[in-house]
Amino acid sequence: MRMSAFFLPTLKETPNEAQIVSHRLMLRAGMIRQTSAGIYAWLPLGLKVLRRIERIVREEQDAAGAQELLMPTIQPAELWKQSGRYDDYGKEMLRIVDRHDREMLYGPTNEEMITDIFRNAVKSYRDLPKSLYHIQWKFRDEIRPRFGVMRGREFLMKDAYSFDLDPAAARRSYQNMFLAYLRTFARLGLKAIPMQADTGPIGGDLSHEFIILAETGESGVFCDRRWLDLDVLRDAPVYGDDLEPFFTQATGIYAATDEKHDPATSPLPADQLVSARGIEVGHIFYFGTKYSKPLGAVVAGANGEPVTVEMGSYGIGVSRLVGAVIEASHDDAGIIWPDSVAPYQVGLVNLKSGDAGTDALCVDLYHKLQAQGTEVLYDDRDERPGAKFADMDLIGVPWQLVVGPRGLKSGVVELKRRGTAEKHELSPESALARLLA
Amino acid sequence: MRMSAFFLPTLKETPNEAQIVSHRLMLRAGMIRQTSAGIYAWLPLGLKVLRRIERIVREEQDAAGAQELLMPTIQPAELWKQSGRYDDYGKEMLRIVDRHDREMLYGPTNEEMITDIFRNAVKSYRDLPKSLYHIQWKFRDEIRPRFGVMRGREFLMKDAYSFDLDPAAARRSYQNMFLAYLRTFARLGLKAIPMQADTGPIGGDLSHEFIILAETGESGVFCDRRWLDLDVLRDAPVYGDDLEPFFTQATGIYAATDEKHDPATSPLPADQLVSARGIEVGHIFYFGTKYSKPLGAVVAGANGEPVTVEMGSYGIGVSRLVGAVIEASHDDAGIIWPDSVAPYQVGLVNLKSGDAGTDALCVDLYHKLQAQGTEVLYDDRDERPGAKFADMDLIGVPWQLVVGPRGLKSGVVELKRRGTAEKHELSPESALARLLA
Repeated sequence: MRMSAFFLPTLKETPNEAQIVSHRLMLRAGMIRQTSAGIYAWLPLGLKVLRRIERIVREEQDAAGAQELLMPTIQPAELWKQSGRYDDYGKEMLRIVDRHDREMLYGPTNEEMITDIFRNAVKSYRDLPKSLYHIQWKFRDEIRPRFGVMRGREFLMKDAYSFDLDPAAARRSYQNMFLAYLRTFARLGLKAIPMQADTGPIGGDLSHEFIILAETGESGVFCDRRWLDLDVLRDAPVYGDDLEPFFTQATGIYAATDEKHDPATSPLPADQLVSARGIEVGHIFYFGTKYSKPLGAVVAGANGEPVTVEMGSYGIGVSRLVGAVIEASHDDAGIIWPDSVAPYQVGLVNLKSGDAGTDALCVDLYHKLQAQGTEVLYDDRDERPGAKFADMDLIGVPWQLVVGPRGLKSGVVELKRRGTAEKHELSPESALARLLA
Repeated sequence: MRMSAFFLPTLKETPNEAQIVSHRLMLRAGMIRQTSAGIYAWLPLGLKVLRRIERIVREEQDAAGAQELLMPTIQPAELWKQSGRYDDYGKEMLRIVDRHDREMLYGPTNEEMITDIFRNAVKSYRDLPKSLYHIQWKFRDEIRPRFGVMRGREFLMKDAYSFDLDPAAARRSYQNMFLAYLRTFARLGLKAIPMQADTGPIGGDLSHEFIILAETGESGVFCDRRWLDLDVLRDAPVYGDDLEPFFTQATGIYAATDEKHDPATSPLPADQLVSARGIEVGHIFYFGTKYSKPLGAVVAGANGEPVTVEMGSYGIGVSRLVGAVIEASHDDAGIIWPDSVAPYQVGLVNLKSGDAGTDALCVDLYHKLQAQGTEVLYDDRDERPGAKFADMDLIGVPWQLVVGPRGLKSGVVELKRRGTAEKHELSPESALARLLA
């Protein structure tokens, strides 16, 4: 994409309304714009990041054996009355009356609806286990929306639901998603730590929150140093393995939010205990028959007997993750995208747009990188070098490839890694080889 | 995907509530389920088709130079009061009051919101032309929703918006989208005919509806036989060309809905006139300053003078297209997917699941096809051959590859093309070669 044509309204000044760094940087980098309190439009740059995160979430759900469907945003109140949650949700639920005076609502979550779909479709134990998920916009009418996409009202969530014949099978489904979550966050370049959690309005017996570490995180967390050393993508078992040993081991490593951590009774010596800050990005629940019972999700068992299915639900805040990644990875100059979620891999900076030599080399590099499937943001604007460097640092593309008239004379370009600020002068061919390696 | 594990609740009986063939087949093939009047959940098979159509729509928008963003579903009423449309929309607009008693609405379209985003971001003529689009769920509270996804209340729409400095440039943007629409529908395997249209509640000077031909279409259409011979992908110019000659030629070929066609004054001889049925799937508008003026979307012109931008909007009913494709392509046995939108390319039918020989060959074919990137739906269920054939015909996968114990003895499998019912017995290797060609 050429920046001269890109719809990328960056801001030089820090917007007053933004209290946290991800909100400030998303506004300044032209990723989002607020359209109402707590409701945002995703501009092209922000949408690209959102889609990359969504894709990684989807790939791990698919790999875990969950099947994607898509439920609508607007739900009938009737279903929520059947589960008994219509009143529980209070004013956070956006209630709507349609033209025929039917009570509807904008879904804050989908336990009721998926149970309804399941009960009408699945009749036999032979069709279990089944895990279904969707990635859909939700609405929670927060009394005081703030922190940009971290606590918005309309937000994108991945929610999965598991259906099993008995508690032992449900535990396996839970462990499967536990692994999927650890893998998902690791692939996003985040260090996520599962913490035993209260089940809140979802209800249930077993629950974990996934909290990612970020210096500017919203809450304090404490954990065993061993969590920092765990490399999930290297060390964890794979889908389909018996996950019980890994689950037992992982949930045995100490981790607690500051609300639950008591220094007086901490099981760890001080040098083994890490104190950090974190952001909740996922929450998983096993709640047995809490919804299947009132809604009648019953299958015929092996001997024809009716069995009320055991359920769990598993949420990831997809739009929230965009902010969370920034909280975990930025510096004073702007965002530092992990490679896996970067909107572009390479930012190509032409230090003197209009100069025949730099223009020609830039266009050549631009086409060669694109031809190899590398996404490039090409700053071809008529701007000062300082403004271009500042914008590229703000946007946080992992690699910057800088072409200027002086380097051109000696046959070199500059390749800079955004995260480390490491710079190398090298020939255009060597730079290409490095980027395409 | 193995059908034994797939969440695919097909129905043997035709549901009573479905009045048109696409609605019946989408319910029977387990693609959708109604969750409220005119609101549907997309089950895995339906979602795959929806995503394929969405991808083709997106690819053509991108190729046409439009940039994707994503606006939220919930909009502030305030903006619609500024444009003067808040009252015009009547009861079809789903109006919502949030917990702070602010008037909100579920967007039925986005002219106001995109104009607001544009006016805050773009200040100079140098940033024009600009085309922005999103693919987002919309809501229209139809008084009598029916015909499944063809006239639902919550529906997926691609809406693009163009911003130009003067009417001549706006006309070029309009022609660019005109071409994008013809190409999009052609790639979906549809014959689409643009017809001059009234501008209705969107307003404006120039407008075309795109109607695709389908025997079971909702309305009668008349057109010049030359429309049937036009192959857009072969004959039309490409993006970036001067489109005026093509536009003038194409809009000069006679086409009219039955409301506008008057046999007495038809410009065509009877043998040149085609009478057919059709379905509206797209609508494009050029409306000048209808929204930019009240909302103040003004840029600085070349001499610093304020210029109110010229706008157009361009809609495609993405979820409606799923139904429209089925209306255009089905038979008594079920759906016949065009290759470009098929949820799977190959349906692999094991006539005797549990038989060591057919199981082994099926698994081998399944893996080999998948390894080459072909999406395969493998019917490994313990069902009668008749039920398997019926389901595969219903689902409408373009190629059926049938493996049975009798053929196995003589070293052959059967390859059937769903659309033509042409069948060939050939060796498994030859079948693979055919499918991967």
